[in-house]
Amino acid sequence: MTAGFVFDLDPALAKARMASRLLSQADRDSALLAIAESLVAEKQKILEANYMDVKHEQTRGTSEALVDRLELSEGRIEDMAAAVIDISLLPDPLNRVVDQWDLENGLEIRKVTVPFGVIGMIYESRPNVTVDAASLALKAGSSAMLRGSSNALSSNRAIVSVIQEALERCIIPVDAVQLVDSPDRTMVTKLLNARGKVDLVIPRGGGSLIDHVVKNSKVPVIETGVGNCHIFLDASADCRMATPIVTNAKVQRPGVCNAVETLLVHKDFGSEELSRLLYSLKAYGVEVVGCEETRAIFPQAGIATEKDWIDEYLDLKIAVRIVDSVEQAIQHINTYGTQHSEAIISSNKRSTEMFLDQVDAAAVFVNSSTRFTDGHVFGFGAEIGISTQKLHARGPMGLNEIVTHKYLIEGDGQIRE
Amino acid sequence: MTAGFVFDLDPALAKARMASRLLSQADRDSALLAIAESLVAEKQKILEANYMDVKHEQTRGTSEALVDRLELSEGRIEDMAAAVIDISLLPDPLNRVVDQWDLENGLEIRKVTVPFGVIGMIYESRPNVTVDAASLALKAGSSAMLRGSSNALSSNRAIVSVIQEALERCIIPVDAVQLVDSPDRTMVTKLLNARGKVDLVIPRGGGSLIDHVVKNSKVPVIETGVGNCHIFLDASADCRMATPIVTNAKVQRPGVCNAVETLLVHKDFGSEELSRLLYSLKAYGVEVVGCEETRAIFPQAGIATEKDWIDEYLDLKIAVRIVDSVEQAIQHINTYGTQHSEAIISSNKRSTEMFLDQVDAAAVFVNSSTRFTDGHVFGFGAEIGISTQKLHARGPMGLNEIVTHKYLIEGDGQIRE
Repeated sequence: MTAGFVFDLDPALAKARMASRLLSQADRDSALLAIAESLVAEKQKILEANYMDVKHEQTRGTSEALVDRLELSEGRIEDMAAAVIDISLLPDPLNRVVDQWDLENGLEIRKVTVPFGVIGMIYESRPNVTVDAASLALKAGSSAMLRGSSNALSSNRAIVSVIQEALERCIIPVDAVQLVDSPDRTMVTKLLNARGKVDLVIPRGGGSLIDHVVKNSKVPVIETGVGNCHIFLDASADCRMATPIVTNAKVQRPGVCNAVETLLVHKDFGSEELSRLLYSLKAYGVEVVGCEETRAIFPQAGIATEKDWIDEYLDLKIAVRIVDSVEQAIQHINTYGTQHSEAIISSNKRSTEMFLDQVDAAAVFVNSSTRFTDGHVFGFGAEIGISTQKLHARGPMGLNEIVTHKYLIEGDGQIRE
Repeated sequence: MTAGFVFDLDPALAKARMASRLLSQADRDSALLAIAESLVAEKQKILEANYMDVKHEQTRGTSEALVDRLELSEGRIEDMAAAVIDISLLPDPLNRVVDQWDLENGLEIRKVTVPFGVIGMIYESRPNVTVDAASLALKAGSSAMLRGSSNALSSNRAIVSVIQEALERCIIPVDAVQLVDSPDRTMVTKLLNARGKVDLVIPRGGGSLIDHVVKNSKVPVIETGVGNCHIFLDASADCRMATPIVTNAKVQRPGVCNAVETLLVHKDFGSEELSRLLYSLKAYGVEVVGCEETRAIFPQAGIATEKDWIDEYLDLKIAVRIVDSVEQAIQHINTYGTQHSEAIISSNKRSTEMFLDQVDAAAVFVNSSTRFTDGHVFGFGAEIGISTQKLHARGPMGLNEIVTHKYLIEGDGQIRE
């Protein structure tokens, strides 16, 4: 067992805090390069550990899709290392002066970006999240407490030990990256109760994981990821845009949070055009369910119930509803949406402006696919998740979203009258 | 009973949400001016209601200090109205483009400020918070759900009914400002559980209120206010600065969160100077407790225990500890502080830089009083509280701290490859 693997959370958190105090002044980019190098050098060690996890899941009869998410290869490890190098090349998010002004009494105020301190990550099977989260936290000057899935425990142990060895070579405290190394589920509860010891928890995974974290945490949380996304075809929607955009948003990668789940269609959008669009989705293997009006136009559609407006399918399935107006579309979205990504296809200025203004979501699109909500696409260079909450970060989160700030005020003897 | 007073929380929150959808486009500044006008016009109604609260508390034998915080006068109501006018004159925090860029594929991205939606405020006796919180939320485009203290219920009812009448005259939905009108304490729990219906809760009051909210809320919270603040006198501290700054920070208003509670003194700071400084505090009626070394220099000091390093006295009392180095001072602050306001008095560049960098607090001061951590002093024009957490807002919170943002992305048919 390598030093730093955690069974007793409190001392581990105390060590993470101590390590974090040294990070903002450390050469974090060199440490990231060292981590990338070690991941490649220690490929075999990681693959062997990963093989144990994979074999164990196969024996248990876990689905192939899940095993595939868990399984590493030389290529996947090289990709992980390349991502760490990319992060090392991004601008330093710390010590940026984001605002600066003087008071009449001569006090000089600067608002500067500083690290959170200790960031907890709670996530599911994919072992690459271990590398991503550790690297982003390090670059942002915070210690990372990593709680992956128990079915990836052996892989995560190997990866964290490789990371810690790299940190040690760079004379950075190894406690800056720690695995919450226990299959015991109460350890998650303990982590979520460690107010004052953990500064921020980011859950990353399916809806039930996120829901559990949000409901049980006494530590500040950034909620990520659940996306019940809509596209609204306005009466004036350009049909040559509508079909490729809806198809792209549904079919290109149906299992991700920014894929579309419900199509809202203005009653004055052409029935023939809608019918053609839905046929085209069918041709891609998409199951279509719809409201009564939809089924009158496209009888191949199944019956949509209230549940279909709520569900995030994450699959080749789409719900379709005919609405009377842009107002009704907005109301539907604000009722059933998860404030992730919402799009309107329209050539009408009044409709698009109303949609942009009134839809309550992290990202609101005009005449484009919802699939663009992504930290890499947005140009952030990295992404730790997509926030669907309003506090602190909303939408794709890059390095600038996992730092905080403080005010530095310098004077020469000022007192308050 | 005026319409809009809440006993059944869920429908009240639904109405608050509906009202909030209309606020960003409403003439919020005119509404604020109407509120200010009505507060003055309806002074008598408010004073009569307040008299009932005051009488009730006096009958119960409540302390004079608490009754004073509760009691209104014509002058206090006029001050409340003046504060509302000030808020109406501040720049609109909404629809500001805070970032803007284009992607290579032609997508145009704007990051703009938008309202939270529904903001819950949970606070203690002073009825002026009712007016402040309602006005700041309105200006920031959000509905306010106000939960004041039960001992101010009659005053708060009168104030909220005056505000609602003013909103009605301006054709703004009265549900934008509502009182959680029930002495039932479980109503606070319900409010804190209303995830998705309330976007943000801000507690304002004493430590136990804030602690209760932070520990029990499933709604995002901004923690405010508890301040165990320190001043560190470095070896090189200028004595002519030290005494006025420490005196100001302790004596000018001891009951507030940015007052100093513990004085840390470098062992090489002059004993005679320290003794004079502590005598001067004594002369202002300040009780001094200290570590052994302090008591050797200033025998009038009582014995400080571990509890003194933790306590936020909010009173004419100060704890004094001699430390070996700036490092030890920083460690003491990062161990016992509440990340509010911390100051160093020093003429040594290395010490001040280390202090600014390593002290983990919302506001870190060099050669000035801690009392300057304040939204009005900082020039924000208003203050809804002082955040001591790291998520979203840190330090004084003005209007820009109670809005969120969204991304607006406009294209002409872009799909993701």
